[in-house]
Amino acid sequence: MNAPETMKQFRPKEFRHVGTRPVRPDGVDKVTGRALYGPDFKAPGMLWGAIVRSPHPHARIVSIDTKKAESLPGVKAVATGKDFPTLQSLVMHVGEGASDIVHVARNCLALDKVLYEGHAVAAVAATTPEIAREAAGLIAVEYEELPFVLGLEEALAEGAPLLHDDVFTKGVDPKPDKPSNASMRVEMGGGDVEGALAGAAVTVTGRYTMEPVHQGYIEPHACVASWGGDGQAQIWCSSQGHFAVRSLTASVLALPQADIRVMPLEIGGGFGGKTTIYLEPVAMILSKKSGRPVRLAMTREEVFRATGPAPGAVIDVRIGADADGTLVAADVEFKYHSGAYPAVDAGAGVASAIGHYKIANTRVVGTEVLCNRPAAKAYRAPGAPQVNFAVESAVDELAGKLGIDPLELRLKNAAVEGDPQTSGVPWGRIGWVECLEAAKAHPHWSAPLGPNQGRGLAGGYWGNYGGPSTVVVSLTEDGTFTVTTGSPDIGGSRAAMAIMAAETLGVPYEQVRCVIADTSSIGFSMVTGGSRTTFATGKAVVEAAREVKQVLCSRAAKMWNVAEDAVEWQDGEMVCTAGEKEGTRITVAQIAPRVAFMSGPVSCVAGINAAGWLPGFGLHICDTEVDTETGHVKIVRYTAIQDVGTAIHPDYVEGQIQGGAVQGIGWALNETYIYGENGKLDNPGFLDYRMPVASDLPMIDAVVVEVPNPDHPYGVKGVGEVPIVPPLAAVANAIHAATGKRLNSLPMSPDRVYAALHPEG
Amino acid sequence: MNAPETMKQFRPKEFRHVGTRPVRPDGVDKVTGRALYGPDFKAPGMLWGAIVRSPHPHARIVSIDTKKAESLPGVKAVATGKDFPTLQSLVMHVGEGASDIVHVARNCLALDKVLYEGHAVAAVAATTPEIAREAAGLIAVEYEELPFVLGLEEALAEGAPLLHDDVFTKGVDPKPDKPSNASMRVEMGGGDVEGALAGAAVTVTGRYTMEPVHQGYIEPHACVASWGGDGQAQIWCSSQGHFAVRSLTASVLALPQADIRVMPLEIGGGFGGKTTIYLEPVAMILSKKSGRPVRLAMTREEVFRATGPAPGAVIDVRIGADADGTLVAADVEFKYHSGAYPAVDAGAGVASAIGHYKIANTRVVGTEVLCNRPAAKAYRAPGAPQVNFAVESAVDELAGKLGIDPLELRLKNAAVEGDPQTSGVPWGRIGWVECLEAAKAHPHWSAPLGPNQGRGLAGGYWGNYGGPSTVVVSLTEDGTFTVTTGSPDIGGSRAAMAIMAAETLGVPYEQVRCVIADTSSIGFSMVTGGSRTTFATGKAVVEAAREVKQVLCSRAAKMWNVAEDAVEWQDGEMVCTAGEKEGTRITVAQIAPRVAFMSGPVSCVAGINAAGWLPGFGLHICDTEVDTETGHVKIVRYTAIQDVGTAIHPDYVEGQIQGGAVQGIGWALNETYIYGENGKLDNPGFLDYRMPVASDLPMIDAVVVEVPNPDHPYGVKGVGEVPIVPPLAAVANAIHAATGKRLNSLPMSPDRVYAALHPEG
Repeated sequence: MNAPETMKQFRPKEFRHVGTRPVRPDGVDKVTGRALYGPDFKAPGMLWGAIVRSPHPHARIVSIDTKKAESLPGVKAVATGKDFPTLQSLVMHVGEGASDIVHVARNCLALDKVLYEGHAVAAVAATTPEIAREAAGLIAVEYEELPFVLGLEEALAEGAPLLHDDVFTKGVDPKPDKPSNASMRVEMGGGDVEGALAGAAVTVTGRYTMEPVHQGYIEPHACVASWGGDGQAQIWCSSQGHFAVRSLTASVLALPQADIRVMPLEIGGGFGGKTTIYLEPVAMILSKKSGRPVRLAMTREEVFRATGPAPGAVIDVRIGADADGTLVAADVEFKYHSGAYPAVDAGAGVASAIGHYKIANTRVVGTEVLCNRPAAKAYRAPGAPQVNFAVESAVDELAGKLGIDPLELRLKNAAVEGDPQTSGVPWGRIGWVECLEAAKAHPHWSAPLGPNQGRGLAGGYWGNYGGPSTVVVSLTEDGTFTVTTGSPDIGGSRAAMAIMAAETLGVPYEQVRCVIADTSSIGFSMVTGGSRTTFATGKAVVEAAREVKQVLCSRAAKMWNVAEDAVEWQDGEMVCTAGEKEGTRITVAQIAPRVAFMSGPVSCVAGINAAGWLPGFGLHICDTEVDTETGHVKIVRYTAIQDVGTAIHPDYVEGQIQGGAVQGIGWALNETYIYGENGKLDNPGFLDYRMPVASDLPMIDAVVVEVPNPDHPYGVKGVGEVPIVPPLAAVANAIHAATGKRLNSLPMSPDRVYAALHPEG
Repeated sequence: MNAPETMKQFRPKEFRHVGTRPVRPDGVDKVTGRALYGPDFKAPGMLWGAIVRSPHPHARIVSIDTKKAESLPGVKAVATGKDFPTLQSLVMHVGEGASDIVHVARNCLALDKVLYEGHAVAAVAATTPEIAREAAGLIAVEYEELPFVLGLEEALAEGAPLLHDDVFTKGVDPKPDKPSNASMRVEMGGGDVEGALAGAAVTVTGRYTMEPVHQGYIEPHACVASWGGDGQAQIWCSSQGHFAVRSLTASVLALPQADIRVMPLEIGGGFGGKTTIYLEPVAMILSKKSGRPVRLAMTREEVFRATGPAPGAVIDVRIGADADGTLVAADVEFKYHSGAYPAVDAGAGVASAIGHYKIANTRVVGTEVLCNRPAAKAYRAPGAPQVNFAVESAVDELAGKLGIDPLELRLKNAAVEGDPQTSGVPWGRIGWVECLEAAKAHPHWSAPLGPNQGRGLAGGYWGNYGGPSTVVVSLTEDGTFTVTTGSPDIGGSRAAMAIMAAETLGVPYEQVRCVIADTSSIGFSMVTGGSRTTFATGKAVVEAAREVKQVLCSRAAKMWNVAEDAVEWQDGEMVCTAGEKEGTRITVAQIAPRVAFMSGPVSCVAGINAAGWLPGFGLHICDTEVDTETGHVKIVRYTAIQDVGTAIHPDYVEGQIQGGAVQGIGWALNETYIYGENGKLDNPGFLDYRMPVASDLPMIDAVVVEVPNPDHPYGVKGVGEVPIVPPLAAVANAIHAATGKRLNSLPMSPDRVYAALHPEG
């Protein structure tokens, strides 16, 4: 691999550890197979579970006969939706949020209706996986099939099959009096859009569409649950947030949270799709009934049929510009699949549509649409890539019409600090212009192209997040440190936390080890998602480490019998700076064996709700080569430029950027859910659901731009979401550049490209 | 079971939870088999280990040939003492304490010499336990046998085989210039002992002896270690202190402590014997060599031959009194087995000998003696029961000579607050007199006796301890609480911690769950031992819970926009006590879902070095019935009275008292290590090493006296050690009362009792 560039010109000072690339603390475990992922965990006496799933996209459950399954030797428990607490007890337990919790519960095990093919209906636990599967086959479910609907327009049409009779469109005033498949509507913007469009020198109009895509994590969902006779339970699983697993499972089962201890295992990819629960409450019910730990794990097919995906979309865009290229108006209206239950991508989609441009007149409307598909879940920058594909394609088209270089057009209109976002709130210290400038300066932008090649670019952004995290930094007896967090490590956070702790403490990186503790061993921490962990949990690490320094200085002061302010922390040592003992030093390793027996062990906690996060921006440049005879699109060069604030461990930052870009390229070119006329998924496997592999792609050149976040001690902004946003349009724009054809429907698979190139057929 | 009495007359106020008997949080798991003990844990891909042990009590290791074992199919690793770091690297790593660490290391795997039969010499890891055992048998160790010594007097005799050429008697001045089997000498006291004895109206003189006894925990030592290629390791084991396992293993292997994560499993008895390590570094070496997790677990025979025991002893006592029963002088000199390596029981033995009596002239001397036995380890009130047996037997004899009731004699001379201990330090608020008064008032003391029955009593004490503990109390999202500690639960500490947290927070007990976190998830906490945990970790719980209340009040104040001091905590609710919002209340459950998103999750840590502990005192009354034809002694009634400060969960307190008394009775009547002429242990199993079982004993009536500790928020003093101290003499005194015979050698087994009754043979 060529070493990607890091542009540090904005960094105020050099660090000792921040920005270095030390050995990954989880690397050896992961490459040697020592790391335990969700499906690896086994408990003594464990039973194996299997789930019965609906073959119908929409049906009423008339009856479930579990007798045959129960009488199969080796079967220890059978569960159905009736084993979950009633709606009333959930309302009592959860209060306001009960209806959302009911949806989570029903998605884990259907009660009266199945809402998509693959919807879980019943489960069984047995002494072997074979018996469990056999028993699952013996559970007889009688269905009354109902009309189903998969498409966005169809689901909103008058007379469409209604999924829920208790879901009313949120976000419209007054509250509707009839239930609807439109579960939510979000609108932002301002100004006179129609007037400005009418007066614009140039306008473009387009409709962009795509089917849902899956997050495509390699590790299928799996868990082991053990629920004791006294109501106390343990759950082992991989997730993006074991505290979310705890709270959701507790809510669904109406249990006190302190009675559930969730142990985090390594996670083999989540990308937003592992911020919820599917199996845990079911395994809990089976465990309670059997008195044994129960393992449930999905097959790849189950993952495709019943988890994720990201919503598909229909997006209508109109953009207008003055003749000099000033964008004057944008109207964006999109509909997203929410699948079987209400989802929340529309809000982020609206916020992520056109805010990167200064446009006086805007209107962005998003609608969530229920349909007979698996419930949509977050996927990296949830809601943003779809609408960005439309907007950045349209901006590209506009540049063409205006005869302006697409990079210059973007630079001309790029939002900077102080400009209003679509919501009206001004942007903070964002690095969007810096990314555009970096692109302009990058050799890729001016490199020559070969035959049938074209170059496209697209920019995108994501709001990022902060939020609650708890961290404990503890001194061991030999002067090394443990950093305890509640944040699953999905992208190198253990390394980043250790680096930030070492930087703050002024000690070698090797003296700091970061672990992810279970839900009963560390205070609450929000899910690892929204690009929040290095920012928010990192802030907590720094706060706790600073307190450790302070406590150790006060211990040294006590030991030396000097005033507390006469001791300073210098490079991992305590130094007396005043009085008789001035110049006396003691290292952490020297004081460490004594401190516990002075005023107690040194262990400092920071429980913070991290504020001050800043959005991330990226600019991707893509070169494609189109085989006009087959429609095959080859990515020949790809550069992903992103402002990350500060890269704590650049290897991981570049990895996140490369990974996000690759996922976006897959979305652009290959990935898509394909449903048959019967409402069943036709491609629930990696053979037919085609994700790009290493041999499909060139090295993704990740260019790290650092415009530090002034509200983070080391300038972190967040990395993970942004890089999946621009690729869809970047690839489309590159295909247009290579072929003159604009493809507005994803994926831009060979058949579609061929059809575009050969409209005659 | 009859409900034991609790005497609360000294308690200043009533509590809501303290002193109640809620359901044990670990009870259901333990009776249903769901709890995982040391030997229960299995890791994926785990290898099974076996250890080769010395057949000789003392020998030089000439060579170890591991080739045959290594070539056995299925064998993945072999370890010998040479695999441990060299002495030089240990000195570099550990510094001052290196020689102690070398002893720990050598006891785990001998290097040049074996020092006792059963000493570990080599180890092997294989794919099955059967292969491991077979391979162990293929390891050829060539020994050069050396003369050995088992007895205390023999080991101190001129020309005795010397165990170590680098051990010089500690505690003597000037430092000896020759190595010795006397590893330590401790002396305390003051006044003119010889003069006072010469002037005493009555004196008694006696020699008391006993062989070592084992702690007798049901769960053999077991661990699984997994040492990754990057030096990071996990160890799963049961112990009384997983932080001690971490620090000892790190020291023995010269590793940074933060690189080792020790996971505590449930412990099936420790009684002091699980405060050290035997298997962990060996499993680590085998894991490193094989690249796999490795399990090592002892058989019962290995436990007897190579772990524990408590030292045997030879104790010489002289006590003198005035005619009115005032004790005027005591001279106590004892020798304790330390076994193969220096031990530390002598200091506690000296401090626990005669300090419960006011005596103007005292001399107490203790000597630790190395010999070819397994290295002595702590056993419940380590060092105290042996010397107490001698002193309380002698005091009883003195009472007989004086013609004074033995209870009255003790009351007359009992030390109270302010009286000097043997060290000279004055006693704090101890409850010794209160125990004697309780005994006097107890119906047992005046109950009639049957034929061949006799009643004995004895008092005893233990200093108890405080020390370093870390606790985190965290609020969950639904208002329940987790209490995270680093203290293994060997006697109900989870329940005690939850009770103290609930009491402090004013919330129901069921809303609080206490867990024991691994060494990387919680700050340093000292071993659970010395009766310190409920006192010290409990103090930390209260401190952390108080901070939680304060933080929550400040959050409520913020929410209500009032001053922080306008919010008070009342019974688990925050109440506004001033201003416009006066009287407004919010419950924990109501505020809990919001707090993380206000100023962050509420998680408070207390890392304390708990001071203010107070010693515990007990008085035991024992009725025996002696079968004069067989020498069999039956315990027909037994009452154990003890000042515990405050009983947090009386069930557990009574259980500790009962358990300690039973262990003491076993020590008195049955238990003993029996060595053959060849220096090998003849009774390494529960069939031949006879511990009392339930059917051997009456209900032990535990009487809890509460003289609260003013330095603990709920008055705790500590419970676990004291109850094993008095039984040895109480039983001996009861046998004397029944038979007129005084047995000065333990155990008072039927053969010895018969011999005493029938001196003619």
